Amino acid sequence: MEKHLTNVYKEGLHLISEFSVADTTLIKDMELVTAYFNTCIDTFGLQKVGEVYHQFPESGYTAVVCLTESHISIHTWPEFNRVTFDVFLSNYQKYNNETAEKIHDGLLKLLNAKEHSVKRLMR
Amino acid sequence: MEKHLTNVYKEGLHLISEFSVADTTLIKDMELVTAYFNTCIDTFGLQKVGEVYHQFPESGYTAVVCLTESHISIHTWPEFNRVTFDVFLSNYQKYNNETAEKIHDGLLKLLNAKEHSVKRLMR
Repeated sequence: MEKHLTNVYKEGLHLISEFSVADTTLIKDMELVTAYFNTCIDTFGLQKVGEVYHQFPESGYTAVVCLTESHISIHTWPEFNRVTFDVFLSNYQKYNNETAEKIHDGLLKLLNAKEHSVKRLMR
Repeated sequence: MEKHLTNVYKEGLHLISEFSVADTTLIKDMELVTAYFNTCIDTFGLQKVGEVYHQFPESGYTAVVCLTESHISIHTWPEFNRVTFDVFLSNYQKYNNETAEKIHDGLLKLLNAKEHSVKRLMR
């Protein structure tokens, strides 16, 4: 399944996002985001090749999901009410720009994001 | 050691890089980059909290190193002579902008990068 299927590199969308939240307890809860990412992978037919979830003591967490399509990462800082979040999905085997946007939107809703900024790069 | 030491969020430098190489055999060699990242972590006093290294059959690899300081990621596509590379280091416990630049420069030298583009974000 990992074998490449087409012969032209297709740039993927990388969403580079920062936000704060209404309630910082939500960004201490690593299980919440673990479940969300796993649901996204199933829902959108992504292929996970590895992952790291690391909880900092009495603080936030760092999580990266490695995909055949590239990666998703999140770093939370509840003590500063700050989250940095990346969704980077290749369009190689199929077009994933809408999927990347949906994963981004869904996480912001899940965590009840307030102020936020997002940059979009094709790469 | 993971306990946060200061009480102000400090934006970190995120280098977002793409490049091609003179010899694509170098971007199939995951051991090369594994050794390089581990050397960087030791040299620059970064704190690794997890990692994923995944080799695609007869192709490139995906690697992400999760750090207390955020993450480093690389996705290689030897069949297209294309690499996407990210270095994102928080300045929270110490100022890491120069370290991020050195890790970026060193990897481009290691892999004998040719054409390349890099964007820098503070986030």
